[in-house]
Amino acid sequence: MNHSIEALFKPTNIAIIGASRKQESPGRSILRNLLKSDFHGQIFPVNPKAEEVMGIRCYSSVKDIKEKIDLAFIAIPRDAVVLAMEECAQRDIQAAIVISAGFKEVDEEGAELEDELTSIAKKHGMAVLGPNCLGVINTDREVKLNGTFAQHNSAEGNISFISQSGAVGVYALEFAAQSQVSFAKFASLGNKAVSNENDLLEAYMEDEQTKVIIAYLEDFKNAPKFFALAEKLRKQVPGKPLLVLKSGGSESGKRAAASHTGALTESDEVLDHLFDQYGIIRMPNLESLLNSAKAFSTEQIPRGNRLCIITNAGGPGIITTDAAEKVGLKVPPLSEELQKELSADMPATVSCDNPIDLVGDADESRYEKALKILIDSQEMDILLLLCTPQLMTDMEEIARTIGKYAEKAKQSGKMIVAVFADFAPESKVKDILIEKKVPYYQFGNHAVDACAAAVKYQKMKTKPKEESKQDFQIDKTQTEKLIRKGQKRENKFLTEPEAYKVFSDYGLKIADYDVAKNKEEAQKLAGSIGFPMVAKVVSEDVIHKSGNNGVVTHINNEEDLMQAYDNIHKGVNNIKPEADIKGILLQKMQKEGVELIIGARYNENYGHLLMFGLGGIFVELLKDVSFRRVPLDKQEAMDMIEGIRTKKILEGMRGRPAIDKEALADYLLRLSQLVKDFPQIKEIDINPVFGLQKGALIADARLIIRDSE
Amino acid sequence: MNHSIEALFKPTNIAIIGASRKQESPGRSILRNLLKSDFHGQIFPVNPKAEEVMGIRCYSSVKDIKEKIDLAFIAIPRDAVVLAMEECAQRDIQAAIVISAGFKEVDEEGAELEDELTSIAKKHGMAVLGPNCLGVINTDREVKLNGTFAQHNSAEGNISFISQSGAVGVYALEFAAQSQVSFAKFASLGNKAVSNENDLLEAYMEDEQTKVIIAYLEDFKNAPKFFALAEKLRKQVPGKPLLVLKSGGSESGKRAAASHTGALTESDEVLDHLFDQYGIIRMPNLESLLNSAKAFSTEQIPRGNRLCIITNAGGPGIITTDAAEKVGLKVPPLSEELQKELSADMPATVSCDNPIDLVGDADESRYEKALKILIDSQEMDILLLLCTPQLMTDMEEIARTIGKYAEKAKQSGKMIVAVFADFAPESKVKDILIEKKVPYYQFGNHAVDACAAAVKYQKMKTKPKEESKQDFQIDKTQTEKLIRKGQKRENKFLTEPEAYKVFSDYGLKIADYDVAKNKEEAQKLAGSIGFPMVAKVVSEDVIHKSGNNGVVTHINNEEDLMQAYDNIHKGVNNIKPEADIKGILLQKMQKEGVELIIGARYNENYGHLLMFGLGGIFVELLKDVSFRRVPLDKQEAMDMIEGIRTKKILEGMRGRPAIDKEALADYLLRLSQLVKDFPQIKEIDINPVFGLQKGALIADARLIIRDSE
Repeated sequence: MNHSIEALFKPTNIAIIGASRKQESPGRSILRNLLKSDFHGQIFPVNPKAEEVMGIRCYSSVKDIKEKIDLAFIAIPRDAVVLAMEECAQRDIQAAIVISAGFKEVDEEGAELEDELTSIAKKHGMAVLGPNCLGVINTDREVKLNGTFAQHNSAEGNISFISQSGAVGVYALEFAAQSQVSFAKFASLGNKAVSNENDLLEAYMEDEQTKVIIAYLEDFKNAPKFFALAEKLRKQVPGKPLLVLKSGGSESGKRAAASHTGALTESDEVLDHLFDQYGIIRMPNLESLLNSAKAFSTEQIPRGNRLCIITNAGGPGIITTDAAEKVGLKVPPLSEELQKELSADMPATVSCDNPIDLVGDADESRYEKALKILIDSQEMDILLLLCTPQLMTDMEEIARTIGKYAEKAKQSGKMIVAVFADFAPESKVKDILIEKKVPYYQFGNHAVDACAAAVKYQKMKTKPKEESKQDFQIDKTQTEKLIRKGQKRENKFLTEPEAYKVFSDYGLKIADYDVAKNKEEAQKLAGSIGFPMVAKVVSEDVIHKSGNNGVVTHINNEEDLMQAYDNIHKGVNNIKPEADIKGILLQKMQKEGVELIIGARYNENYGHLLMFGLGGIFVELLKDVSFRRVPLDKQEAMDMIEGIRTKKILEGMRGRPAIDKEALADYLLRLSQLVKDFPQIKEIDINPVFGLQKGALIADARLIIRDSE
Repeated sequence: MNHSIEALFKPTNIAIIGASRKQESPGRSILRNLLKSDFHGQIFPVNPKAEEVMGIRCYSSVKDIKEKIDLAFIAIPRDAVVLAMEECAQRDIQAAIVISAGFKEVDEEGAELEDELTSIAKKHGMAVLGPNCLGVINTDREVKLNGTFAQHNSAEGNISFISQSGAVGVYALEFAAQSQVSFAKFASLGNKAVSNENDLLEAYMEDEQTKVIIAYLEDFKNAPKFFALAEKLRKQVPGKPLLVLKSGGSESGKRAAASHTGALTESDEVLDHLFDQYGIIRMPNLESLLNSAKAFSTEQIPRGNRLCIITNAGGPGIITTDAAEKVGLKVPPLSEELQKELSADMPATVSCDNPIDLVGDADESRYEKALKILIDSQEMDILLLLCTPQLMTDMEEIARTIGKYAEKAKQSGKMIVAVFADFAPESKVKDILIEKKVPYYQFGNHAVDACAAAVKYQKMKTKPKEESKQDFQIDKTQTEKLIRKGQKRENKFLTEPEAYKVFSDYGLKIADYDVAKNKEEAQKLAGSIGFPMVAKVVSEDVIHKSGNNGVVTHINNEEDLMQAYDNIHKGVNNIKPEADIKGILLQKMQKEGVELIIGARYNENYGHLLMFGLGGIFVELLKDVSFRRVPLDKQEAMDMIEGIRTKKILEGMRGRPAIDKEALADYLLRLSQLVKDFPQIKEIDINPVFGLQKGALIADARLIIRDSE
């Protein structure tokens, strides 16, 4: 762990600047929490107006403290914060947590103060949480640091939490106090003036106490770095999942923008794809984030998605089966042998199908028999124990029995979860299961959601990203020249024939085409290209060809061709009289294959993204496209292709042949290399490209360059 | 309420047959619960082996009781149940609740016993719950009947619950005891040998204490009746919603079957459409059923879907906004005027956008100011109050303030819901809000799910089904003859030209066609129909024309036609040498319009269903079809058309013209009349029908008749 970040979590001595005597002030609350949590180091309250706070001697400034301080909490009015930071820096304090609010979240003046704060921290290499944050927790028994002003601390656990919002942190702590969720570390990011999610992610990656990392984020300080860290986590720390609740994709404005094709890369759904790419599990809401973290904290990762439900009640079993299948789990029937084995030990009324219905009068011994047999068998990956209180049901005894087998289930590679209709506050079911590390839920749908997240993680963790293989041998001379040329143009784009040259050099195939400068050339070309043809305007002044009357399709003979030639000239001149028409591009009309779209786009937050989808009306109608960040590897290219909802059409339905996915994956990798080689590319739109039984053919394209790099 | 059903819920005197002295026996538990709930009537335990149970005198048989008994609980071994039922009938007992299990759910013998039980009940007009059920609850303070063997009773409320599963009932009661859910009536259906969901639905419809009806169902005893009752509820008792959790659509087998087109009508998704048709709100799981019931129980139905979030914490506000938009609610910005009005009263740090962020130090007065202004404005339909405990937050005080405005909000037509990060068992927030009828949730996603259900209800309740208008003037003579003819055939179907005759008589238009008996006729017809054409075999032995080489498309000239004629004869004979080919149907190939599919199918559970969807690969690839039950009205026909996900394509995209939805709706209504007139029709498949700018043209069809009516 980075030295100054370590000071945030494992300080020896702490100063609390602003340790007020006022009840309910943040400074005092932090002091109270530190005392209550039994912090192992020494605490130095700083408050020039007080001799002591809560019985501890006060200092009027950090400068007066003789002992070496590792971490300073700053909880004073905003105008005094910069000076306090300066003093901390002078005292060589490694880390600070700025609780005070009123910075960039409020006004211009606050933003300026925040900038000053940032530069002090950077100059001195300090780690700083905040400003405007809740604080930090480290439940490690060697440290016992509760440096927040929240009401609840967490029990010692193995989940570490990064929360951009302090209130979400409080929310989680409140929930955790009554549920089965315990944290190793917790950090509230606040305004992220200095330290951010990446610093903490790195710290949690290395932290041995941490087995599960969860985060609530509203934006990324540096998304490419976050993804790189996630990838590193997947490769270097297998078994430590990263669950993220990323919010804020929904303000009406953003959503509206995302509803038209051009803005697809700006839509919140892109993140779903990128999270998949880097093995990050995206959670839809806080409840599911915490519920899934609970399951992961028991460190059971199932080998597959076969769920066995063992229940003492039919109805809840069926409801849970429905929920399980809805999230992609399978609830397959047991083999005949297993059914026989089970029923040998059970009363006749017991149903040994899946769900296994132990019937209402089931006691713990019936659960035990079923558990034993299922643990020994290899038919299932996840065992879900469901219990509803019926007349004879001793829920605590049943919980104890399940707990007894938790370790054995884990050893046999099975995930085990429990659902109890247990709502009474005085019930001990929860505690019994916590102790034995059995994740516990009150409703089946929560349990299966958590199981689905675990199955998803299992799949993702088995395919860490290969070292990028985009090392195609490309002669870049022509592309370099063309891109430089495009950059100088007002519209910053390459004409269609220029773009085709670039793609050809990168190994992509274009449907037969050529450019005619006059009618005679057009007639000659028709002979070599062949009908039916498409004619398209070539002009540095026309980006949107069809929107400017620049395209005629279905040209079936010479007469059509001559007319098209004239119509394009006239039509374009009508709309753009100033347009300089360099010629007419004639291209063979593609009749076979599946119409697809491939694109690349530079996204300010995430860098270059590739896009793949069905073309034609599908992209508009269904927005059925998949995304990956550049560079991508072969597996990721295939994932993109397989990632669209309509992928069945690629596999040949209704008598159509299956298309060549390998060729498409190859195109994606080559485009990945192209935008890596020329990061000044803003946008590539290959629409359509026809996927064929063998290979793929581009039938239209454009390439736009960024204003500045 | 039906007299004998009334005896179930409002008995004066109760007999408990099987009032055992054994702890934890169902009979004794029911007795205990009746005593505990302070039942207003008199209780007569029946147990020949005991003098008294729990201090109450026992009878050895119902025959020995002198007083008139209204309701008998039967909780004795299954073999004794029939005799007990007989005795009840002789004593003229109106209603029985058979707790005993071991009937048709277990074995053949049990099924026979159940049949005997049913016939006794039917003969004497008795209402019977069970066998194999949990019992009944009526919290009405005039009755106070807790006739279940569950551990928890419910507080007096206005939600009435029908549960096919006893365990789901127990689950709900356990949850309810700790949440804000209270029941008016509860009934466990068990095996539904006599009384079923329809009897109870009817009773709850009439019951004044009941304001919300919820049901857990695994199957329907009589689905058409259920739908008819739901429709009657919507028309005659506006404001009393029906929420149903219907499970069991998921066993692997059913799902697999549902994945191919032919089985679409058997898939669980059909029910989503039928529930929409009849104004039933389908809930995905037990938790959401109970959470939504909680919101409905406060009898606030919002006028629209504009949600305003008022929060003291940004993060949870954003998360809730995301969740709201995901379920179709809008979180629109406040008008400038309203923002001004709000900010005039608030500190500068408060954000008066939507979510309104009152900031962490908000006390109840800040909530109060916001509430007052929002209640008076007409910009929002739902107010969601969100509260996270921060340093100064007095959650109970804030809850009290919200409670104070609940009635006022309701009066102004607004729905109000609260989300508190309040997990401590000792907190009073819940009770404060319950008392003031503010639905309360611990997570924003639960609240917005409930709000979305309320918005859905509001929309559905405003459009009760019109009296069916299928009174087209049709001459049925030819159709009658043809259907009778088809019925006599082995394959029970009409040939394509016969089906076309039926559709023509019913006012549907067919793409130009005629049948050629020989090549000369074919040549002659080509002249009148015109190329391009399709040729299709006409034979009473060939249902699946293309699967039997019976179709040639894209016939562009006479030569093609002659070849097609020969190919079809040869091809069909190859596969079906015995096929008697009556002729070749020649039909104009349709080039314009949108390829659609319209179908009708007889479903054993639901009766005749109509289906509408995009044709071609869409139906297979996306399974994007909508369903309604016959008969349907104009609005429902339009709902079907508008109900597909890809409806944008009907409205004209990418320069295509919009198609004539009115004409399609007309076709649906005419087909509805056709299957109503001829219920022996099993299946109609019109695939494709081309939707045109004006009208619609059928280009292929088949009609199959049922084996028996």
